Amino acid sequence: MVGVVGGGQLARMMQQAAIGLGVELRVLAQRPDDPAARVTPGTVIGDHHDFEALKAFAAGCDVLTFDHEHVPTDFLHELEAAGVAVRPGPDALVYAQDKGLMRQRLSALGLPCPQWALISSADDLADFGATVGFPFVLKATRGGYDGRGVWVVDDLDAAKAVLDGAAERGVALLAEAKVPFVRELSAQVARSPHGQAAAYPVVESLQIDGICREVYVPAPGLSEVAAVEAQRIALTIAKELGVTGMLAVEMFETADGSVLINELAMRPHNSGHWSMDGAVTGQFEQHLRAVLDLPLGQVKPVAPVVVMANVLGLDLPEVYPAYKHVMAHDPGVKVHMYGKDVKPGRKIGHVNVLGTVFDDVADRARHAAAYLRGEIDE
Amino acid sequence: MVGVVGGGQLARMMQQAAIGLGVELRVLAQRPDDPAARVTPGTVIGDHHDFEALKAFAAGCDVLTFDHEHVPTDFLHELEAAGVAVRPGPDALVYAQDKGLMRQRLSALGLPCPQWALISSADDLADFGATVGFPFVLKATRGGYDGRGVWVVDDLDAAKAVLDGAAERGVALLAEAKVPFVRELSAQVARSPHGQAAAYPVVESLQIDGICREVYVPAPGLSEVAAVEAQRIALTIAKELGVTGMLAVEMFETADGSVLINELAMRPHNSGHWSMDGAVTGQFEQHLRAVLDLPLGQVKPVAPVVVMANVLGLDLPEVYPAYKHVMAHDPGVKVHMYGKDVKPGRKIGHVNVLGTVFDDVADRARHAAAYLRGEIDE
Repeated sequence: MVGVVGGGQLARMMQQAAIGLGVELRVLAQRPDDPAARVTPGTVIGDHHDFEALKAFAAGCDVLTFDHEHVPTDFLHELEAAGVAVRPGPDALVYAQDKGLMRQRLSALGLPCPQWALISSADDLADFGATVGFPFVLKATRGGYDGRGVWVVDDLDAAKAVLDGAAERGVALLAEAKVPFVRELSAQVARSPHGQAAAYPVVESLQIDGICREVYVPAPGLSEVAAVEAQRIALTIAKELGVTGMLAVEMFETADGSVLINELAMRPHNSGHWSMDGAVTGQFEQHLRAVLDLPLGQVKPVAPVVVMANVLGLDLPEVYPAYKHVMAHDPGVKVHMYGKDVKPGRKIGHVNVLGTVFDDVADRARHAAAYLRGEIDE
Repeated sequence: MVGVVGGGQLARMMQQAAIGLGVELRVLAQRPDDPAARVTPGTVIGDHHDFEALKAFAAGCDVLTFDHEHVPTDFLHELEAAGVAVRPGPDALVYAQDKGLMRQRLSALGLPCPQWALISSADDLADFGATVGFPFVLKATRGGYDGRGVWVVDDLDAAKAVLDGAAERGVALLAEAKVPFVRELSAQVARSPHGQAAAYPVVESLQIDGICREVYVPAPGLSEVAAVEAQRIALTIAKELGVTGMLAVEMFETADGSVLINELAMRPHNSGHWSMDGAVTGQFEQHLRAVLDLPLGQVKPVAPVVVMANVLGLDLPEVYPAYKHVMAHDPGVKVHMYGKDVKPGRKIGHVNVLGTVFDDVADRARHAAAYLRGEIDE
């Protein structure tokens, strides 16, 4: 039995894959109407910040894995010490949880990062601003996703204001140069405890306000050399950090065609949802195989072009009435909804479209996503 | 919410598809460890022969559908009269439940059937034997699947023995000529209450002892003309009988290339499991769309050749240990297990393989299925 901490849509989609593999999933969710709780029998309602609840939950599982990266690292160390197979383990997961540690480790490995510095004082801010110039980016080293805990500061005063606010809340800061990227890429790999690894095609990810909106597979116009290099980086990180399960390495592509690592996620990732319909082995099935130490599945795409478009909540309170139009308009669109209440800007689902011509596939995915959120009505 | 009567693997795979569509499934199962009960929260344990239980179950559902065809037809008429959307409705379903009614209706529609006769007496048997010769086939008109309730009788005495046994149990009999078929085909279609219909590629089904073992997609060597005719027959049946949801029409192909209708199933069917990985819209998602009166999804295959092989229980009590070999041997095989205890001959799962060369794809599927059941160990 695989235990998943967190009841969000990632755990929900793990349940979908678990059904086919005949693997029993157990979810620890905070609320009974969480996306995964709605579709997984035996869901345990509990808080991952409550060590006793977490420990009790883990006791019945063969493997413990995650829908998110917010479980305190020390809890995971205790569970591991108690014999629980935590995958990915805390020694790896900490690099997804703490951006400061991540930058230190990646730089020590000689992997390409934007200029960065850990910030403890206003002097640190001034030094960094003097080195890289303004604007630059400040990030909380822990917590934060989908754009939260990230600030772009235009001058030293703005930077100090963020530092003061962070200090009040006990949040440590990391400064990074603001990269003039031409686009964002994501390289996903799976790795098992045996050390077997598989690299998915490198994808392009369109982000707006820090939230993923669309993913193009493969990344259009990316040279073979650049794609292999991005995969090599991701495989290296997985191996060196001892990651098991899925690893997503988000990267910036700069004007000269080189890449800089942006963030790591050690779980199935938004940039991999395309694989649920577009690859021989979807990321959720692959994650389960990997954490169960089963041989990995084939990663190749089943169509020349795949585009995923996120469905973000807008004004339309109910998505289901939009199904008739979307499905009638395009019988080939694959709809994936998360069972979440609609709130503006919230990720409530995604659509995948497979095809052969990029512009056509992208148009189809955008149309479906826009209609499902109520952005367009024809 | 879609209610499914029956907790077998068909309902289990409906849950898998329901998760993606964001549709809530509710299962009425006989046992808490039934395949669908294991993966569907809120499963109601109850007997579909208990009208009050069935009625209570249906009350909370927007649509009622089926994992099997054993719900008494009169119960369904009562539910329909009470306002429940039963899909497929009893007026259609009766033709899947009662083979005698099926033969009468199909022949009245001018659709190709083997010679047949309803049997009430030993004289009826003698007349039929005189007309078509021995051996011929006797079938219980109600009940029976995977080869049960079917007898091949070599002479009049054998036929009378079956008749006597059937009379004791109150079972009505249908006699059919034993068709010297070259192979068995299956034509599946989906139809919605709106009347929209979609026809899947016609497949070849390898049956041993009345149980499906392998399915080849598309049916090798089937001419375009013959395929279209088989699809036309299935679409006609769906429309004339008012079927909603998936309909499988199993057919015999005779030496002269023509087809005779064998059986009907008004639910997702073993001959359609290939579509879970091999078609743009798998049969379980399609069944849900159809019964919910949503526009149907695209039915085309995603690979030139798809082969499904059933995994039937043998000696190996646990299937999971075989995963490592099967997955390592062939990372492209898609494994689908049903969460059932292994019993000899029982359908415990299936594998799908996609590819371009039939012999290669079939070999891969056979190897995987044989290994998973313990028939081979390398």
